[in-house]
Amino acid sequence: MVPHLTTSLTGPLHEIERLVLAQRAGIEGWFRAQWQEHVVPFYTSVDLRNSGFKLAPVDTNLFPGGFNNLNPEFLPLCVHAAMSALQRICPDTSRFLLVPENHTRNLHYLQNVAVLRRILEGAGFTVRIGSLIPDLAGPVEVETAAGEKLTLEPLQRRGNRVGVEGFDPCAVLLNNDLSGGIPAVLRGIEQPVVPPLVAGWSTRRKSHHFHVYDRVAEGFAKLIGIDPWVVNPAFSQCGKVNFTEKEGEDCLAANVEFVLGEIREKYAQYGITEPPFCIVKADAGTYGMGIMTVKSVDDVRNLNRKTRNKMSVIKEGQPVHEVIIQEGVYTFESVDGAVAEPVIYMVDQFVVGGFYRVHTERGIDENLNSPGAQYAPLAFETNCHTPDCGGKPGDPPNRFYTYGVIARLANLAAAVEVEELVERESALEVRAANA
Amino acid sequence: MVPHLTTSLTGPLHEIERLVLAQRAGIEGWFRAQWQEHVVPFYTSVDLRNSGFKLAPVDTNLFPGGFNNLNPEFLPLCVHAAMSALQRICPDTSRFLLVPENHTRNLHYLQNVAVLRRILEGAGFTVRIGSLIPDLAGPVEVETAAGEKLTLEPLQRRGNRVGVEGFDPCAVLLNNDLSGGIPAVLRGIEQPVVPPLVAGWSTRRKSHHFHVYDRVAEGFAKLIGIDPWVVNPAFSQCGKVNFTEKEGEDCLAANVEFVLGEIREKYAQYGITEPPFCIVKADAGTYGMGIMTVKSVDDVRNLNRKTRNKMSVIKEGQPVHEVIIQEGVYTFESVDGAVAEPVIYMVDQFVVGGFYRVHTERGIDENLNSPGAQYAPLAFETNCHTPDCGGKPGDPPNRFYTYGVIARLANLAAAVEVEELVERESALEVRAANA
Repeated sequence: MVPHLTTSLTGPLHEIERLVLAQRAGIEGWFRAQWQEHVVPFYTSVDLRNSGFKLAPVDTNLFPGGFNNLNPEFLPLCVHAAMSALQRICPDTSRFLLVPENHTRNLHYLQNVAVLRRILEGAGFTVRIGSLIPDLAGPVEVETAAGEKLTLEPLQRRGNRVGVEGFDPCAVLLNNDLSGGIPAVLRGIEQPVVPPLVAGWSTRRKSHHFHVYDRVAEGFAKLIGIDPWVVNPAFSQCGKVNFTEKEGEDCLAANVEFVLGEIREKYAQYGITEPPFCIVKADAGTYGMGIMTVKSVDDVRNLNRKTRNKMSVIKEGQPVHEVIIQEGVYTFESVDGAVAEPVIYMVDQFVVGGFYRVHTERGIDENLNSPGAQYAPLAFETNCHTPDCGGKPGDPPNRFYTYGVIARLANLAAAVEVEELVERESALEVRAANA
Repeated sequence: MVPHLTTSLTGPLHEIERLVLAQRAGIEGWFRAQWQEHVVPFYTSVDLRNSGFKLAPVDTNLFPGGFNNLNPEFLPLCVHAAMSALQRICPDTSRFLLVPENHTRNLHYLQNVAVLRRILEGAGFTVRIGSLIPDLAGPVEVETAAGEKLTLEPLQRRGNRVGVEGFDPCAVLLNNDLSGGIPAVLRGIEQPVVPPLVAGWSTRRKSHHFHVYDRVAEGFAKLIGIDPWVVNPAFSQCGKVNFTEKEGEDCLAANVEFVLGEIREKYAQYGITEPPFCIVKADAGTYGMGIMTVKSVDDVRNLNRKTRNKMSVIKEGQPVHEVIIQEGVYTFESVDGAVAEPVIYMVDQFVVGGFYRVHTERGIDENLNSPGAQYAPLAFETNCHTPDCGGKPGDPPNRFYTYGVIARLANLAAAVEVEELVERESALEVRAANA
């Protein structure tokens, strides 16, 4: 169950939504069983695309940075969900360390940090903010977009524990995606780090996530009796690409051809007449950098210098060598005439809110996570508390329930993915110890 | 943490509220530790009285019947909390049986049942309603105050399991307080019953609850450094009273004198000039029946026939033989000029909403749970998402946080109380088996 939210779509429900609504009890029971086997991530946000004929996650963020874009009315939901999660992580003490991104000039991001702090405080924790900013000599006060004050303090390592001056936390909440690598100050500490360090972009890969998602979608599709493709974008990957040096072009072309072929086949099967497209993006990337829309093999042959430069480097100057070629999913949603896609936020196993990412300068076949994007919080939809709401298809709340289900599938995939990353790391550590 | 709710009080915070707000992290940590030791009730509602100098629970209901009076916007909170609870109770299956009260003519109560069903359905369960109405031959459709349809079905016992026609639930949720005793059809079944059958009014006693609450309040008061009296109403009890036969009057008089004496002492200590009063009520009672306000011993000597009749019988015609004499707590809250008291609803360990019980015909020293009471849902208070809300005393949301804390103390007492009832029953069963 998710809160009832408004959606921008008002047309009739697609088959998938009808099936999901009809099998709600079975689906929730299935999720309950899954969460007994897997550790749910502390928080996740999922970008969805709804093309009417397909509703699928296209990106799963384990360090969500847009809590400031949620409807403020969702705060109690966030707090309850955080209480559930933190009961497992910190049963005995009440001190939490929040480690944010370093970019202190993004005042909206800082507001996200302020909201996260408020959620943790609401759950009954004393929160301090430990910064990874190099050479931070002492506490620094910064002001967020909403005018709130945050004190960033230098991280201090004491033996196997990390904290800030005079503050020994029970756990560390990472809101830094570690694009620049795992910092030494956090390695090998005895406090729990959530998400685990290996979930950062120095070790995580989108392709790994979507490989796991393949299995999750398969199981879910079987449960409700649908073609898994309807909730799962096709994808492929290339491991050795260098856009600057024009290396790996053949691999890219072959995989673009492969993914476009898969889409063509499905479009033919379902009588869909829109032209297929893929999204090529950095396999370890984030922040909407290193992303391009591709409609034919020619689009990746002979890239011009500008595109090659755009694709070659992502956040914190990391070079791109691995890419994922993902089926593009049209978005047929719009807010005030601008192209929109829903972003769903989860804390623990609960959907706690979401917003529309809206872009006035982008098309329905383009990545919207780029400069100029705006955010429209999803609102509570309260009209489903009257008798006529018993699951009438086409009701905005019902549509949003389906969004929550698909986002939770991606959350489940993230859980398994992180488990596998942690296992792999343990195996490497054992091997290193034995070497 | 509780959702931010509006309160009718706008005056300055009393000392207790200031102390609670200042020690939020410590209090939440304390609750976390308590909930690791005790099983939280599935749901509870708590009547509070706030006199400014005292904020205390006066009644704790383990079968709350006013979910229909909550703000509809609270539904997602209820659903999340129910998901938390039901994960423990029914991890594997998705079928739930709801057993309501028998009074089908109270359409508002039926609406409460409809909302409860919606919460369970929202948490992903298939819900059927099993009725204890005697001689119910088959399914009966009833309509609630809001015009929703409910199908009441006769309970069916099959071996050690209970269900309704063609439906074998994983568990039974009681919303029937068992004032008339524990029905044979529910005895000894293998499915979990929540709350346990012994939590019904045939075995439960208010005085037992408040004995346990004494210990909880003691621990809490020590934690935050207050006099436990500030959150705990004094009380005493009489075990052999018969109002019709004028038996037990001496016991009643002596205990009224005792409780009034306790209050007088405390009022003197704190310089409170209002006249002390007590509330005499059935120890196993509910529904606001069998309740009287007493300001002196004379009030319980020579009761007139009308009062004796009123006090002698409660719900379902059960005679009153045991009474609790509880310190009366003035309510200084009012809604639209009428006397009001807050009622706080909890599901699992979470505060999920509340309402004001408002009575235009009652005074500040009277029980408001009586015919003519009205209900004003507490609203979300969203103004605490701006920077100026960092705990400014006197803010309505902060006041409501304190209400949530005190209500959760009563919830904790209820948890321990139910544990003790279950233990006592097991001991009796063992003794019976050995006899």
